[in-house]
Amino acid sequence: MDDRVWEHAEVLVDWSARVDEGDRVVMDVAEDAHDLAVAVAGKLGERGATLLATYGSDEVTRAYLRGHDDEFAENDPKLSMLEAADVYLRLAGGRNTTATADVPAERRRAAAKANVAVREARMATDWVSTVHPTRSLAQQAGMAYEEYQDFVYEAVLRDWESLADEMANMKEVLDEGSEVRIETDRTDRDGGRGPSRRTDLTMSIENRTAVNSAASVAYDSHNLPSGEVFTAPYATGGEVFFDVPMTIDATRVENVWLEFEGGEVVDFEAEQGADAIANVLDTDEGARRLGELGIGMNRGIDRFTDSILFDEKMGDTVHLALGRAYDSCLPEGETGNDSAVHVDMITDVSEDSRLLVDGEVIQRNGTFRWEEGFEE
Amino acid sequence: MDDRVWEHAEVLVDWSARVDEGDRVVMDVAEDAHDLAVAVAGKLGERGATLLATYGSDEVTRAYLRGHDDEFAENDPKLSMLEAADVYLRLAGGRNTTATADVPAERRRAAAKANVAVREARMATDWVSTVHPTRSLAQQAGMAYEEYQDFVYEAVLRDWESLADEMANMKEVLDEGSEVRIETDRTDRDGGRGPSRRTDLTMSIENRTAVNSAASVAYDSHNLPSGEVFTAPYATGGEVFFDVPMTIDATRVENVWLEFEGGEVVDFEAEQGADAIANVLDTDEGARRLGELGIGMNRGIDRFTDSILFDEKMGDTVHLALGRAYDSCLPEGETGNDSAVHVDMITDVSEDSRLLVDGEVIQRNGTFRWEEGFEE
Repeated sequence: MDDRVWEHAEVLVDWSARVDEGDRVVMDVAEDAHDLAVAVAGKLGERGATLLATYGSDEVTRAYLRGHDDEFAENDPKLSMLEAADVYLRLAGGRNTTATADVPAERRRAAAKANVAVREARMATDWVSTVHPTRSLAQQAGMAYEEYQDFVYEAVLRDWESLADEMANMKEVLDEGSEVRIETDRTDRDGGRGPSRRTDLTMSIENRTAVNSAASVAYDSHNLPSGEVFTAPYATGGEVFFDVPMTIDATRVENVWLEFEGGEVVDFEAEQGADAIANVLDTDEGARRLGELGIGMNRGIDRFTDSILFDEKMGDTVHLALGRAYDSCLPEGETGNDSAVHVDMITDVSEDSRLLVDGEVIQRNGTFRWEEGFEE
Repeated sequence: MDDRVWEHAEVLVDWSARVDEGDRVVMDVAEDAHDLAVAVAGKLGERGATLLATYGSDEVTRAYLRGHDDEFAENDPKLSMLEAADVYLRLAGGRNTTATADVPAERRRAAAKANVAVREARMATDWVSTVHPTRSLAQQAGMAYEEYQDFVYEAVLRDWESLADEMANMKEVLDEGSEVRIETDRTDRDGGRGPSRRTDLTMSIENRTAVNSAASVAYDSHNLPSGEVFTAPYATGGEVFFDVPMTIDATRVENVWLEFEGGEVVDFEAEQGADAIANVLDTDEGARRLGELGIGMNRGIDRFTDSILFDEKMGDTVHLALGRAYDSCLPEGETGNDSAVHVDMITDVSEDSRLLVDGEVIQRNGTFRWEEGFEE
């Protein structure tokens, strides 16, 4: 087995989930995540944790949901299992990213609705979600299998301690700041084919707490890889242009432009996938407001792969999400923007761009103020 | 997918486990039992059961046990999950039947000992164990993959209702009878190479209840395939010769002869694997007495494959187990032969043989008294 699988397991168990002796661990294994599951099991044994492995197969889920009608009962064994767990590790890595494509959305929603308590019990554990590189994910990324393996391990096997220290700088700036402004100069990146526009967006972050998402439950961060600092902005105004392509609800979306007034989207355009954006905006009232501003800081991720787990963490990117805000960014007891959706969109800030907090430039053309080469 | 996989799933869910709407099902999926898991999930959806799939991977278990020390805690999420389950389906079918060969036996025992309550909770459900044909199991059986698939489905896809009716005849005979006698004439089946002997064994079954093991929880039968009638004999006397080769504790065992006096083994010989037999007999006091007499009645099984799940169910065979008796054969509140082991050994009764109950011939040369061709 590739040594990197064992290293991945060690990062997951020790850095991310902080597994201790006696911890009760549930590990969900996707169809092709077997090798990572073996390595993680070995590490859990060494740490003296208990282990229950579940089978997270999309094809099993599809068959079950298609066989079932639209009335679901709560999954009692699943709830009891999670309520007795300290740690939940999800090892993604299936055989087909579109394995559940022919399950009616209504059926999926009905099943999810019946299992709100199951989801809450899972979120109450020290949960971490990671991904084992599979051929199916390589295909989604448009990459060869070995190439994709290199890509995943480059993103996962970071010096997380030192990245966490660096991200602490960004968190400090956001925690102390009141207003974020993002500017990009270019107006013609796509060769003039679409609604190419500039970005000049202002958001309030007064009274918000940023999360140093360093891929560890110790930082309230639940994805491996991670590498972003995010907060919950409000009172957004101006325009923003997202030049990183992505898939929203199985629709390819490219070059989206949004205009905000008083915190709400008042106009939008998209070169491709405009209907998908319209659907998102029409979900509910909160879907027209921002729930997240995230600063990607993982420079181990060097390209976009149409997977939000990786794309939004990429160094020299900024992402904004329409919809639900995370409670961890809000003052105790306060609720942020609420919505049934949370849709991230990404803009490349590696050149011709500035990120300002309270008027001071924090990042220019992809270089942070605390980095060598920063131009004042 | 092979139609027989769907038929297997239907037999398992409807005939064997009798799954009803609202039943809470836990399904354990071995590494290569994926296709059967998909089919079973579909059926469970149709029946309106809830489904939690666990990953029964021997390689995950090996890695975990080898990483761990010899002190295990009870697996709390596993116990809670099983206590909240009505049905437990085990889908065997791994990638390597010797995947845990290098885990010290002591470690395995320590883990099992810490999880007695987990095992009891599992046995308290309507549990059924079945097997999906894999290349690894084909190899163990010494068969080609497609040949082995045919073999498994021939054994599993029976007309269970009619086999259950036929087996009811045998159960009636045993329930009403007091003494079983098994005789075989041949003394030289192995060409005179080993301790080849005849069988002439007498056992009491007075006050015992036979189980019609028709592969359904409705018959207190938990294996698919099944197809045997078994009871718990005592006061055994005489000699028995087991001519079907098998593997006991990873040791090949062939042509075993046992002599009983007053219910206990007083002498034995074996052409191959005598040490393994000696180890079994030395386990504890109960290991020298019989715990089971079983009459194989599944004529869909047409050859021995060194897998007890199939071998002992084969039509025209009789098996005896040294060690633990099943409570279901005993009068309410009474305990039968107790032992840490239960080791089945098989004798072919298709020719030159007679099975008598209270002096009356019930089966001669493989033909039962209620079958055409029976010679009075």
